[in-house]
Amino acid sequence: MEFTNQKWVVAQHAQGHLHPDNYQWQEEILPEPQKGQVLIRSIYLSLDPTNRVWMGEEDTYLPALKIGEVMRGLALGRVESSQHPSFQAGDLVSGLIGWQKYLITDGVGLSKLPLLAGFPLTAHFGLLGHIGLTAHYGMIAIGNPQPGETVVVSAAAGAVGSLAGQIARIKGCQVIGIAGTDEKCEWLKKELNFTETINYRKESLQTSLAEYCPNGIDLYFDNVGGQTLDTVLHQMNNFGRVVVSGMISQYNADGSKHIFEHLLDIVTKRLMVKGFVCLDHMYYAETAFTDLLGWWQEGKIRYRIEVIEGLASTPSALLKLFNGSNTGKLLIRVSDE
Amino acid sequence: MEFTNQKWVVAQHAQGHLHPDNYQWQEEILPEPQKGQVLIRSIYLSLDPTNRVWMGEEDTYLPALKIGEVMRGLALGRVESSQHPSFQAGDLVSGLIGWQKYLITDGVGLSKLPLLAGFPLTAHFGLLGHIGLTAHYGMIAIGNPQPGETVVVSAAAGAVGSLAGQIARIKGCQVIGIAGTDEKCEWLKKELNFTETINYRKESLQTSLAEYCPNGIDLYFDNVGGQTLDTVLHQMNNFGRVVVSGMISQYNADGSKHIFEHLLDIVTKRLMVKGFVCLDHMYYAETAFTDLLGWWQEGKIRYRIEVIEGLASTPSALLKLFNGSNTGKLLIRVSDE
Repeated sequence: MEFTNQKWVVAQHAQGHLHPDNYQWQEEILPEPQKGQVLIRSIYLSLDPTNRVWMGEEDTYLPALKIGEVMRGLALGRVESSQHPSFQAGDLVSGLIGWQKYLITDGVGLSKLPLLAGFPLTAHFGLLGHIGLTAHYGMIAIGNPQPGETVVVSAAAGAVGSLAGQIARIKGCQVIGIAGTDEKCEWLKKELNFTETINYRKESLQTSLAEYCPNGIDLYFDNVGGQTLDTVLHQMNNFGRVVVSGMISQYNADGSKHIFEHLLDIVTKRLMVKGFVCLDHMYYAETAFTDLLGWWQEGKIRYRIEVIEGLASTPSALLKLFNGSNTGKLLIRVSDE
Repeated sequence: MEFTNQKWVVAQHAQGHLHPDNYQWQEEILPEPQKGQVLIRSIYLSLDPTNRVWMGEEDTYLPALKIGEVMRGLALGRVESSQHPSFQAGDLVSGLIGWQKYLITDGVGLSKLPLLAGFPLTAHFGLLGHIGLTAHYGMIAIGNPQPGETVVVSAAAGAVGSLAGQIARIKGCQVIGIAGTDEKCEWLKKELNFTETINYRKESLQTSLAEYCPNGIDLYFDNVGGQTLDTVLHQMNNFGRVVVSGMISQYNADGSKHIFEHLLDIVTKRLMVKGFVCLDHMYYAETAFTDLLGWWQEGKIRYRIEVIEGLASTPSALLKLFNGSNTGKLLIRVSDE
């Protein structure tokens, strides 16, 4: 059987904002998988802010992409045919399948996904997977929230932020979410049980933080960096923790640099600022997923999925993460489940 | 017996650079100490970058000073007369005696100093005291340097930096010191055994760090903040540690703010950035001082003292810490030993 692959490859490294010229669409006929190989059909492709980090010219926590290489992307799919002893046709798998419909691989780095009774397939990215691992590891293993503490989460209506905030609520904290539209704020407060929310586009972040955090901030889960980080730093309590999951304001280098006023608070307030990347903590996945599944079944945690149709839409869909028009986990439906 | 006190009081909170108008000289006749009180004559007053932090209008890790209050300062002195059961005339003590010749106190916060055979009195500030505690706690308890690692220290010819760098050398690290004159660099390399030094006023910090740290930087002991911190961040290794002892570039607020280019490295390199203040770690002093005294006796660690004569010189002497004209520990000799 013949498979026609469709894929987005790197045409230019990104400088500043993403641009259609960064990508090129290609089609190719794939050979049959050889002995030891497996052919995967992608179903859902995850779009994440870190996709932009991968597109620069410099190596980051993963090597820089090469021109002509398929765009890197985490996806889940099904095994279409297998010449690999560990995989069978029909297996559900996830891994760095890339921005393409099919992948032929020797299976290195591929994870078999369990069938979760009662959960849609998208839960593997909305509640579990790299999103759930990032939210749980960052909030619990680094942040260590204690009952009664005040926790602030930025990009709180994003995939990671919305879970991280709910986890802190489950741990008995006051949780203030920062987001960019009234709709997002309403969702966080009414459906996700956030204590308070701040629409940073309509309110003064500094003033609203002071109002909602009268006892200061003990723990900040940062997805944004820049001006937001700077403002929060100055309202942290002594010995506060800043968990840096991402800095989306910094990914598009032009015009996003910020003159920091309050880094000195790191010393005077004896803050701990810790960056992390979930790939380092795969050993922690079982701990995280057991909690997250349990909380979901108890009705304590929710997630939202936004699905965009078709691999062809991927470059334009990715922009939604940077212009604030997305809520929850953003996915591309590459093919039918 | 009558004692005429001389003191510097706060005339204006500092904004931007320090200015003679920040201080006012006063003299006063002191009463006899009452029951439960002790009268101390100051001998050596310690001048530290953090003095500037204390002079702002806002509370920091200590409350802001009030107008008319004696300038805060750590000093060592002798008990002249005591009505306090724990102190006797002649005892050597240290504490927040302030920028003044005499202090009458109930003894709260005062420490009795041991007589160290073979050490000059100034060793209590040059090698031990808050300087030794800061260097040892920051480098060992937070930084945890491992043999073979590459360690960078800024303000390396300062009191804390010079000890911190030597401690990392004792632990088997490659230590690169950043300082602002060739004389300081020569002292660090020839007398204190630093692996390499960088005169940041004559060399490109970025280029010299790349040359002297071909394997990247594992641990950065920061006394400076701002541009220096930003440049070092970008050459840190994955999972590196940044110990923030101070940010002297940020204390004089005007003109010292920096547009950070490389804070995103906190995420992509999974860095840990930790601020601290030695006052929180007094319990650790015995551990630190035992090591430091031992290393000194074995000839493994050195310190330098710069003594300026007379309390009247204090405001102008303090400027030496900010214009880079001081090496090692800066002290005012308030009265004879």
